[in-house]
Amino acid sequence: MKITAVIMAGGRGERFWPKSRNSCPKQFLSLTSDGETMIQKTINRLRPIVEAEDIFIVTNAAYKGLVKDQLPDVPEENILAEPCARNTAPCIAFAAAVIGKKYDDAVMLVLPSDHLIGYENIYVKTLKKAVSVAEQGKNLVTIGITPTYPETGYGYINFGAESGEAYEVERFVEKPDLATAKKYLASGKYLWNSGMFVWKISSIMANLKEFMPDIYEGALRIGDSFGTPDFEETLVKEFTAFTSESIDFGIMEKASDIYTLPGSFGWDDVGSWLAVERINETDDDKNYINGDVITVDSKRTTVCGGKRLIAAIGTRDIIIVDTDDVLLVCSKNNTQDVKKVIAQLKEHGRNELV
Amino acid sequence: MKITAVIMAGGRGERFWPKSRNSCPKQFLSLTSDGETMIQKTINRLRPIVEAEDIFIVTNAAYKGLVKDQLPDVPEENILAEPCARNTAPCIAFAAAVIGKKYDDAVMLVLPSDHLIGYENIYVKTLKKAVSVAEQGKNLVTIGITPTYPETGYGYINFGAESGEAYEVERFVEKPDLATAKKYLASGKYLWNSGMFVWKISSIMANLKEFMPDIYEGALRIGDSFGTPDFEETLVKEFTAFTSESIDFGIMEKASDIYTLPGSFGWDDVGSWLAVERINETDDDKNYINGDVITVDSKRTTVCGGKRLIAAIGTRDIIIVDTDDVLLVCSKNNTQDVKKVIAQLKEHGRNELV
Repeated sequence: MKITAVIMAGGRGERFWPKSRNSCPKQFLSLTSDGETMIQKTINRLRPIVEAEDIFIVTNAAYKGLVKDQLPDVPEENILAEPCARNTAPCIAFAAAVIGKKYDDAVMLVLPSDHLIGYENIYVKTLKKAVSVAEQGKNLVTIGITPTYPETGYGYINFGAESGEAYEVERFVEKPDLATAKKYLASGKYLWNSGMFVWKISSIMANLKEFMPDIYEGALRIGDSFGTPDFEETLVKEFTAFTSESIDFGIMEKASDIYTLPGSFGWDDVGSWLAVERINETDDDKNYINGDVITVDSKRTTVCGGKRLIAAIGTRDIIIVDTDDVLLVCSKNNTQDVKKVIAQLKEHGRNELV
Repeated sequence: MKITAVIMAGGRGERFWPKSRNSCPKQFLSLTSDGETMIQKTINRLRPIVEAEDIFIVTNAAYKGLVKDQLPDVPEENILAEPCARNTAPCIAFAAAVIGKKYDDAVMLVLPSDHLIGYENIYVKTLKKAVSVAEQGKNLVTIGITPTYPETGYGYINFGAESGEAYEVERFVEKPDLATAKKYLASGKYLWNSGMFVWKISSIMANLKEFMPDIYEGALRIGDSFGTPDFEETLVKEFTAFTSESIDFGIMEKASDIYTLPGSFGWDDVGSWLAVERINETDDDKNYINGDVITVDSKRTTVCGGKRLIAAIGTRDIIIVDTDDVLLVCSKNNTQDVKKVIAQLKEHGRNELV
């Protein structure tokens, strides 16, 4: 069966401000020294499984130009521009209907655009197994990440009986507190929910029809118009009418026939500036330095430079991010507070800096 | 007797890099929130004692434009441009000879251009007393600062018997270690050497003749040519031939008839970025913030902003200085290491940043 991939690239990535902006969110940034952007890496690591012409990018209409520039191998008609943000369920329904129109049935990988994978060979092998599980019956497959520590920032997947290469999903659970997360790890029955899914178009459409019939109907009308002069008008009309809902809440927590495949391939969701030192090489003093930077007696310092010289002297456990119009100096204990600055800027109408 | 002032403004002020540069050293910067530069403050606080036409600025030829721009009230012919740097003894001899040519004899205040005075009324009173002491005999008067703590970064003046308003100077001593500094304070016989002097032209010339005869002769030839077409040529020829020497070593440590007047007028030499929080108002978290800055949970942080927004999040005991082409992020424990960065830049030929 034809294998296609849907890359979800509509996110905002506030936690990488000031490099990430409304005009250029995280998935379009390079956060590694090789210069590749997150979405370029996402596409490149998929190439052993999916042809470029079968990769679909769902993104906000405002980012169509960025996608075209960064992914010249992906056909322009595969860039599915959402007229507004409606969370993952409408996003996936839109893509599934378009792919259904093109190929009737096919396997569909659903993948975030802004995560990092350390072991790409293992990743590809895992996805191939997931494809083979998804091809059976109405199965919905989710890739679960084998936890390496009791993270409280992710949702978890509780799995049960083994079923071939995969495990049956018992339930999806929200972000736990630390004690609960520790229990999850001790049980050996919980995986991190990575937001990666594999299923057939026919399977996801059947589930949409059952659990989200309005979105199903609307998506079908969008799919029918795909490639016709009515497409734009139909898309705007139907998509803006969708309720905002995640695929986890809308389908995964309700459907049966859900399986998970444990993955262990150096996954990193690159969730804050703290990730930069994790995903890049650091020097002997655990500094990560990018750009025109002089350090004197600095340790555990992350510097993402811009166009100017940066001198970091005696710094400890700090993140410095330089851009043309904003400079961030942030303690590693406070990376979540970047959002507070963005909130203040919005409050004062300084949207050009957001 | 006519009272004149000589402001020494040839210094480089590396410790305020990157705001201070070869092209614009510390004395031409504003480090306080009122926007006045250090040299403007120096001149303004002198005005109750000295007429603008009797203020002379000795500076490097490269800074003549800066002096003219910042001190429009000082006559252009009073800007004495050194063709090269030769430390304070040649600088003072040059100025003394020029003033001697103009006024025959006069009182001459010699003052740094980059210090700060908190209590200007007390400062003026102290200088007036010093003038009256200097007018007697061949006296050389130095203003000593009553120490408030055992600073190891300053030289000290050991004084002896009282003599009218002043005290006889026993000796000048170099920067002590902490134990010695504590002993100095406990003795009640030591003052900080502030580099402020008061004497008659005739007194300093007599001492130059005795202890630095080559400089004395050269300075006389420069003074004789002042106001004639030969001035520039004479100045370059004589001044470049001077040996580089401080007035402390060349005269003060050798001469007799030296008196000191204890001053206690909120003197601050503004010796490093640490001074900024000392000489400005700080907020409840002891942050000093200047410019377009948003702080979240920052404490004891100094931010000297430039043209861009700076977000400081969770920072502690750190100094952030932003300029168009260089950004400094420096721990308060490491302000002396700014010089190491400048040394590295010079080594790599990046003189445009120095």
